[in-house]
Amino acid sequence: MSELLQNYVGGRWVAGTGRGTPLYDPVLGTELARVDTTGLDIDFAYRSAREAGAGLRALTYRQRGELLSAIVKTLQANREIYYEIAQANTGTVKNDSAVDIDGAIYTISTYAKLATTLDDRPFLFDGDASPLAKEAAFQSQHVCVPIRGLALLINAFNFPAWGMWEKVAPALLSGVPVVVKPATSTAWLAQAMVKDVVNAGIAPPGTISIICGSSAGLLDHLEPFDVISFTGSAETAGLVRAHPAVAQRSVRVNIEADSLNSAILAEGEAGGGPAFELLVKEVAREMTQKSGQKCTAIRRIFVPAALYDEVADAISMRLSKVSVGNPRNSAVRMGSLVNRAQYQSVHDGLARLRDLTNVLHDGASHPLIDAEPDISCCVGPTLLGSPDPDRAGLVHDLEVFGPVATLMPYRDEAHALELVRRGQGSLVASLYGADPERLSGLALELSDSHGRVHVVSPDAADVQTGHGNVMPQSLHGGPGRAGGGEELGGARALNFYHRRTAIQGSKTLVAALKG
Amino acid sequence: MSELLQNYVGGRWVAGTGRGTPLYDPVLGTELARVDTTGLDIDFAYRSAREAGAGLRALTYRQRGELLSAIVKTLQANREIYYEIAQANTGTVKNDSAVDIDGAIYTISTYAKLATTLDDRPFLFDGDASPLAKEAAFQSQHVCVPIRGLALLINAFNFPAWGMWEKVAPALLSGVPVVVKPATSTAWLAQAMVKDVVNAGIAPPGTISIICGSSAGLLDHLEPFDVISFTGSAETAGLVRAHPAVAQRSVRVNIEADSLNSAILAEGEAGGGPAFELLVKEVAREMTQKSGQKCTAIRRIFVPAALYDEVADAISMRLSKVSVGNPRNSAVRMGSLVNRAQYQSVHDGLARLRDLTNVLHDGASHPLIDAEPDISCCVGPTLLGSPDPDRAGLVHDLEVFGPVATLMPYRDEAHALELVRRGQGSLVASLYGADPERLSGLALELSDSHGRVHVVSPDAADVQTGHGNVMPQSLHGGPGRAGGGEELGGARALNFYHRRTAIQGSKTLVAALKG
Repeated sequence: MSELLQNYVGGRWVAGTGRGTPLYDPVLGTELARVDTTGLDIDFAYRSAREAGAGLRALTYRQRGELLSAIVKTLQANREIYYEIAQANTGTVKNDSAVDIDGAIYTISTYAKLATTLDDRPFLFDGDASPLAKEAAFQSQHVCVPIRGLALLINAFNFPAWGMWEKVAPALLSGVPVVVKPATSTAWLAQAMVKDVVNAGIAPPGTISIICGSSAGLLDHLEPFDVISFTGSAETAGLVRAHPAVAQRSVRVNIEADSLNSAILAEGEAGGGPAFELLVKEVAREMTQKSGQKCTAIRRIFVPAALYDEVADAISMRLSKVSVGNPRNSAVRMGSLVNRAQYQSVHDGLARLRDLTNVLHDGASHPLIDAEPDISCCVGPTLLGSPDPDRAGLVHDLEVFGPVATLMPYRDEAHALELVRRGQGSLVASLYGADPERLSGLALELSDSHGRVHVVSPDAADVQTGHGNVMPQSLHGGPGRAGGGEELGGARALNFYHRRTAIQGSKTLVAALKG
Repeated sequence: MSELLQNYVGGRWVAGTGRGTPLYDPVLGTELARVDTTGLDIDFAYRSAREAGAGLRALTYRQRGELLSAIVKTLQANREIYYEIAQANTGTVKNDSAVDIDGAIYTISTYAKLATTLDDRPFLFDGDASPLAKEAAFQSQHVCVPIRGLALLINAFNFPAWGMWEKVAPALLSGVPVVVKPATSTAWLAQAMVKDVVNAGIAPPGTISIICGSSAGLLDHLEPFDVISFTGSAETAGLVRAHPAVAQRSVRVNIEADSLNSAILAEGEAGGGPAFELLVKEVAREMTQKSGQKCTAIRRIFVPAALYDEVADAISMRLSKVSVGNPRNSAVRMGSLVNRAQYQSVHDGLARLRDLTNVLHDGASHPLIDAEPDISCCVGPTLLGSPDPDRAGLVHDLEVFGPVATLMPYRDEAHALELVRRGQGSLVASLYGADPERLSGLALELSDSHGRVHVVSPDAADVQTGHGNVMPQSLHGGPGRAGGGEELGGARALNFYHRRTAIQGSKTLVAALKG
């Protein structure tokens, strides 16, 4: 049997007492490790975490930032091992593993740097004092103090490294202990990183815990001052929100769920022109990076009707050059989906979309390099086309979590906006064009239904950060179907892990708060 | 039969087609009016509201502020009528009606004034742009844009005026149409105010709607970009959170629920000294204002053990002077509870608390002035005492929503904090003392479990704004049992009605956003 990965709770490594759930190599089909939570004392785990909170809250933001810097150093030192684990357990090529691993390290570094710009205190002032009486003899001063509970961080399978650290870094900087629950199928990388951080003796016991395996009971033990940050399916998100911990005990929750992200070529751009080319390149990259397994990947592409065929050809041409297969082969550009369940889900979803669309580029046309079609979870990229997108409801509703996107024509700007909004709220939309007036107008129109609007114009072609790439400086999250959450966005991420309070008192009292 | 109050939806007055639910005078027991929602087309109401949103969103903050100023003028012109309705339907004396009516007008005025400090645009910039590339060739600029849905505002029975307008003012200033659902038993005042605003032709049709009566079906028709702001019981709050609109469709929700607010006399203050006297006065006022029917009223009083008896005597002395009865009689200082259901609930709750406490001052000792004990809902103020508060669990758990509070001794500061936190999150705690160092330390310690900490020190005795008085400049809401919501707090209230988005683009694009 493969190695049983241990859980780390309350400053101790604890193995589950059951047989465990196996983790596989999605290309070779071999068993890599097992995870198990049988017999785990969640109540003890949570109590230890909450107790560790007192120590963290006593630190200043700068001290907590030093803790993050130490984590960065440890992860950097072990980087090569993480690449090996990612290749084995998520089937990704090196460039795609980098998005997860180096993306994680960059995000932690950003928060370590941010710490140096914050007050050297254990809490934050929120704005200036407001006078509540003549000559400000009585005032209201808002502060943000760390929450007095733990943060339960439930992550998705597609980003075992980044998905964990983009939540952990703001939580620790806020002075809040974390309990991480990685997705079972790709838990190995998350567990290995936490193990290295623990072994380096960076964080006091209870500060970071990791529970690998079933999430049963994890919500039951939450108390009113704890918080949950969840990334996953809209269906599970619904269960989290309806759980008594959230519905009745007011546990604060942040959700990042499904999203049918859009790319829109603005009106007035020429076929084959610079904006056209930027869209084609970005779509092909977003569809294939991490085999399309990014919450932020482009799922819907909207172009002026007159350019529909030309865009279809240009994207298909790019996709046809993507080599698919075993990430160990240096000729391969796109690796595998993470597991059989996802492989089946992508096949099923694709079949449903094919019923109402045209196949513009067929992923099945890609031969697999060094990978057995019956064993590996590799799939080629597929571009679908829906010439009548008003009637193709499912295209705006069903997120196929793989290298699949649908191209659609629009009549005019109003039509394009209407179609984009049929996604019912998304993480990100990208716009391609050269006219700043038109683009800024469109960006503002799309803001109420998106957490991020990414504008790609020829003047920023070489420096634009990518439609799907989540920069820690920018908000990550979206309304409606996307879950309504807010993560990252620089210091904005700290809000979720703090409690805002108005302290009212005399001039002398408010001055005393500043110490 | 009494008058059937109409509902105002989609710019039309619509009467329910059923017999209606009667509203009563809680002192005289007479029927005043009826409300009914039978046959109301909620879907039409919501569609009209959402359509009205486009017009509101097109206005700038200053223009929306002018709309608020017009509302203020209309309400001021009709102020006397509101006092009459309040006296009849809520049984309050003039000073207590003022808290609701003038509190509402002051809050709207504050937001009208705030509008003049905001950008003259239809959306808000959130911070400065962050560079995402060298020389800021690519940037991230956060904006806050009005949500594209409606705000369903569900209010509690105790503040028919203020409770409505403290939600409506920030929503309208944000550019968001509102659908108000007042509590049935005291809906008359809310309906009368909306009627006056409608008749004054201030807001375009669909901007403000009011639905008086059953809330059945109101949540079913909500869509992903709508929001709910709810004030009421923790039990109903749990149902709101678990409703599919919230749990599955990501409708954003703000909850203000139960709260066992505390008043704490700091250590080191002398019996009969200035801080002691300030606490005694504030407790007596908070217990009796609006017959203790304020979410922010003091329910638990913590004093150093050595002062327990002296505080008990001093508060009891003040309470004994409070005359209770018909608010029409000028000798009466405290009127009635709002209805029979509340009267029964207060009696039941008091009976449960009496089982484990001592009665320090008995409300039953107050003769009722001009009011029939069998008909009116008047009750005298009761001070309970719990000498062993560690063991009196219910005292920290059961909010009796009337003129009732419990006095408790503490051993030292740590003990006091522990007892306060047994409330599991409250709207407000007040501190009484003279030492700014000690008080600021306590205030920060209490911040993570309170939405507001109100410090009363002798140097601010004449200007302090009151423990229970919600100033629009300060945050209103509390974590845990209190619901976890955030209202008011000046411009902070606008967050809930906006969507924050990161717009990423070239220098030129970000400059174009500023127009």
